[in-house]
Amino acid sequence: MINNLRRLVPVLDWGRNYTRGAFSNDLIAALIVTIMLIPQSLAYALLAGLPPEAGIYASIVPIVLYAIFGTSRALAVGPVAVVSLLTATAIGQVAEQGTAGYAVAALTLAFLSGAFLVLMGVMRLGFMANFLSHPVIAGFITASGVLIATSQLRHILGVDAHGHTLPEMIGSILAHLPETNWVTLAIGSLATGFLFWVRKHLKHFLGFLGAGPVLANILTKAGPVAAVVATTVTVWALGLNAQGVQIVGTVPQGLPPFTMPDLSLDLVGELIAPAILISIIGFVESVSVAQTLAAKKRQRIDPDQELIGLGAANLGAAFTGGYPVTGGFARSVVNFDAGAETPAAGAFTAVGLAIAAFALTPLVYFLPKATLAATIIVAVLSLVDFSVLKKTWVYSRADFVAVAATIGLTLGLGVEVGVASGVVTSILLHLYKTSRPHVAEVGLVPGSQHFRNILRHEVETIPSIVTLRVDESLYFVNARFLEDLIQHRVPDGSSVSHVILMFSAVNEVDYSALESLEAINQRLSDMGVGLHLSEVKGPVMDRLKRSHFLDQLNGRVFLSQYEAWITVGAHDNVVETVRNRSKL
Amino acid sequence: MINNLRRLVPVLDWGRNYTRGAFSNDLIAALIVTIMLIPQSLAYALLAGLPPEAGIYASIVPIVLYAIFGTSRALAVGPVAVVSLLTATAIGQVAEQGTAGYAVAALTLAFLSGAFLVLMGVMRLGFMANFLSHPVIAGFITASGVLIATSQLRHILGVDAHGHTLPEMIGSILAHLPETNWVTLAIGSLATGFLFWVRKHLKHFLGFLGAGPVLANILTKAGPVAAVVATTVTVWALGLNAQGVQIVGTVPQGLPPFTMPDLSLDLVGELIAPAILISIIGFVESVSVAQTLAAKKRQRIDPDQELIGLGAANLGAAFTGGYPVTGGFARSVVNFDAGAETPAAGAFTAVGLAIAAFALTPLVYFLPKATLAATIIVAVLSLVDFSVLKKTWVYSRADFVAVAATIGLTLGLGVEVGVASGVVTSILLHLYKTSRPHVAEVGLVPGSQHFRNILRHEVETIPSIVTLRVDESLYFVNARFLEDLIQHRVPDGSSVSHVILMFSAVNEVDYSALESLEAINQRLSDMGVGLHLSEVKGPVMDRLKRSHFLDQLNGRVFLSQYEAWITVGAHDNVVETVRNRSKL
Repeated sequence: MINNLRRLVPVLDWGRNYTRGAFSNDLIAALIVTIMLIPQSLAYALLAGLPPEAGIYASIVPIVLYAIFGTSRALAVGPVAVVSLLTATAIGQVAEQGTAGYAVAALTLAFLSGAFLVLMGVMRLGFMANFLSHPVIAGFITASGVLIATSQLRHILGVDAHGHTLPEMIGSILAHLPETNWVTLAIGSLATGFLFWVRKHLKHFLGFLGAGPVLANILTKAGPVAAVVATTVTVWALGLNAQGVQIVGTVPQGLPPFTMPDLSLDLVGELIAPAILISIIGFVESVSVAQTLAAKKRQRIDPDQELIGLGAANLGAAFTGGYPVTGGFARSVVNFDAGAETPAAGAFTAVGLAIAAFALTPLVYFLPKATLAATIIVAVLSLVDFSVLKKTWVYSRADFVAVAATIGLTLGLGVEVGVASGVVTSILLHLYKTSRPHVAEVGLVPGSQHFRNILRHEVETIPSIVTLRVDESLYFVNARFLEDLIQHRVPDGSSVSHVILMFSAVNEVDYSALESLEAINQRLSDMGVGLHLSEVKGPVMDRLKRSHFLDQLNGRVFLSQYEAWITVGAHDNVVETVRNRSKL
Repeated sequence: MINNLRRLVPVLDWGRNYTRGAFSNDLIAALIVTIMLIPQSLAYALLAGLPPEAGIYASIVPIVLYAIFGTSRALAVGPVAVVSLLTATAIGQVAEQGTAGYAVAALTLAFLSGAFLVLMGVMRLGFMANFLSHPVIAGFITASGVLIATSQLRHILGVDAHGHTLPEMIGSILAHLPETNWVTLAIGSLATGFLFWVRKHLKHFLGFLGAGPVLANILTKAGPVAAVVATTVTVWALGLNAQGVQIVGTVPQGLPPFTMPDLSLDLVGELIAPAILISIIGFVESVSVAQTLAAKKRQRIDPDQELIGLGAANLGAAFTGGYPVTGGFARSVVNFDAGAETPAAGAFTAVGLAIAAFALTPLVYFLPKATLAATIIVAVLSLVDFSVLKKTWVYSRADFVAVAATIGLTLGLGVEVGVASGVVTSILLHLYKTSRPHVAEVGLVPGSQHFRNILRHEVETIPSIVTLRVDESLYFVNARFLEDLIQHRVPDGSSVSHVILMFSAVNEVDYSALESLEAINQRLSDMGVGLHLSEVKGPVMDRLKRSHFLDQLNGRVFLSQYEAWITVGAHDNVVETVRNRSKL
């Protein structure tokens, strides 16, 4: 009972042993993450098409709830780039950006997403995240990074462009290029250049100046804050907003409000599919970060409990003016590197952001949107990695097709179509591969009891006996294949008198395959040819015994292939021949 | 070149050797099928919500086109029950039944379906029909049969009821029950009873009277025609249409008209998904009948060419006032039993129906719809077979779940949801099963070179070596599983010094699984534990060589498990122990 409660509410577990050392480590990590998260929260809200405070709100209560229910000790939850983009795509279809309905739809989306995640967690369906293949995820993240970076170009240029796909975005930006606001472009380019420099060179530069590694680390993470402060002050001092530089403007001051998502049937019906997609993408992204970081400290995370932690975080976002959240890649790594030991680091981050929401919001009035766009561009371009295309091309064409389809369709038709196609493609390719299983005709290795492929080894065969080793489980996708193959190998009027199917690599025979085996047996039986099985695995045999197949079988089931060979061969006029590779 | 042409247009092949004997056999078969097809065509058009002549038209040009491009020698193409129901469901969503738009939408649906089938055929994607599992198809056909029979009850009762699902239909019929037209009910019940009697007992009765088998066969197939004639004459003679008996009414007299499907983007967008579904269902139904019949005569059909044949038939239907067609189960069996030898039998049937369209349509003016409904009910109830539920329950719970979901959702939510759920369920269950592969820890069978599961056999083990036999291909769905399993079996601080993965049943390692193997190797390497592979299959090894995995591997790849055991064991302080089942 207590143990069950501790499993469901992990804070009860680690909270009891919380030490002073862990406290101070968590506090330092929280400070660094807070500094990083303030501009990011504003920026990702911008990406999602929401007012800036939504990003801050989404970083307070959800973090606390994850700290209570989550199992990862380093995961930093909040608004992230890919989920923000997915949110903009989803609610852009049901409401106009900037309207009250848009913000409410974001709450609904967070609520549905949270409810779905909790439901999956309660049903212990965490394993379903595995149905997304690694290359598809990698391709999707890369393509999303490109889309997100491109979508921010309009803020850097200070023009009004739109679009959900790469061609749309580029077309729209080119069309509006003559309207470029040169002051905005100057601010945006400088901020982008500065942030790239900070990311690449600042740490090394600070070390060169003699700063300690902890200080250098904090200063590096503060890069975006420095850009925010510098550009805000510049805009304010020179009155650049009068020259058309878009600024953040008024952000309400105070703690997150209590909000109610709109759960009308119409809206729920329209948002349920995107909510499921966002949940799955968010969960997969989050769980892979959490697993990677946990593995470094030899800790374990529980995927089912992670679903509940992330679900709670999203439900929290729905009721406190936020939008869908998940565990972020970059900030979790920062949190981990900064020495976070427990989820309390997250709770401290929430306190930091609450202070920001209360005290700092008036200060961002003159913050140019171009600076936020620069923050996003620099953050997402680190996710872009096209090398998966080359790696899969070398290793496996099927994986390459899946990743290329994901990247191409995400860029060309948008995020939702892209990821859905990636998943469907990888599953269809798997089905296709297993639909044509490798089946080897085998013979006896002379002087042994082993059987090997007659095309690859010098083996003995008996012409009247055909032995086929099936290198795949038999199920509906390949049921017909074996039927056709045997009809081809043992046609009418063939001199073959026995067929032995060697089932050493058959891990399953489903009902469709059973029907095919019955059809094969029926045909061979009509021709007077015996059908035998050998090396059938225990679970497969147990199942066959529950059908009538074994009663109808025009032959026997042998424990070993050698036994089958000896027994069946003895009935026949044994003619042993030795074939070898060169003859074939 | 010539051979290619013969493959694409099979009529060039069989047409050259067409004999007088084959001609007379085909003619007799065509006569019987024509007699059967006239009332069926009218009835299925009624089921599809179309005017009766659409059924006749769909049985003329499409049959001729299939005879030219198809490969089955017995398949009889035309309107069939399940596809008619799917057509009604699909176009009921875009147009009101009885309007001109409804009939045009049916043409569009046939065109899209035909184009999709031809495209699939040209791309040689016929194997995709295998992605539907046998139990799902059986469940879908059974549930559709129940839906279709129920939908016809309103014509038997003479009431106005509607609905796409079983609860809707039954509710609607019950609500309208007080409006029952008793004369219609009398005609409908008598016709239904008569047709059941003909189907069950007439052949036997005729034999008893001394009729030869061919005559008995023709007379049995003429049962529906007899019912049509008797009820039509009755309605005409007694003027029953004045008493509310619904009749077919005016049917245009003449050959099929030339029609143009509406290919506006809006309509195509709405119908493309149903068209794909209809194509796949129709193709699967048709191809399984064709394969079953071809197997009886030791003939082969070519699934890819079948796609082209059925596609051509549907394109023909689109331009001649028809609606989607496919190979029918019952009529193909009749055609086969009646002795059809070549597709020419189909062409002769088309001539028969053309004569009917030209000469007989005025005669069906007084034909009561109740008689057509009786024809449909008797035909589809022969498709209903719930035994697949029991058979799969006994054999495999996963198959049972798929078939139960298909039947339940088809009845409860309609045909489109039902079949889609069935397909998705069977694929997800397959992925789920392979996501938790069987992995056995194995040891050496004393005195042999064989390795067996330590839980099932008395084997020798070395405590510092863990050998795991993986009984499944490794791919994205189960990549993480192996990682977790090894982490569980060889935790930090374990005394294990070597892990050997026995890959004898691993037929594939995809890119996701490769990444998992790299992660496993990294972790074990950090712990100072060696990772070795044994019995890796040729194709898997070829692929691993294309990655960097083998360079990084903290251990070796051995040809046989015994070699691995001896080599790795020799490095260690060999402690051999014999375990047996009772100790575990």
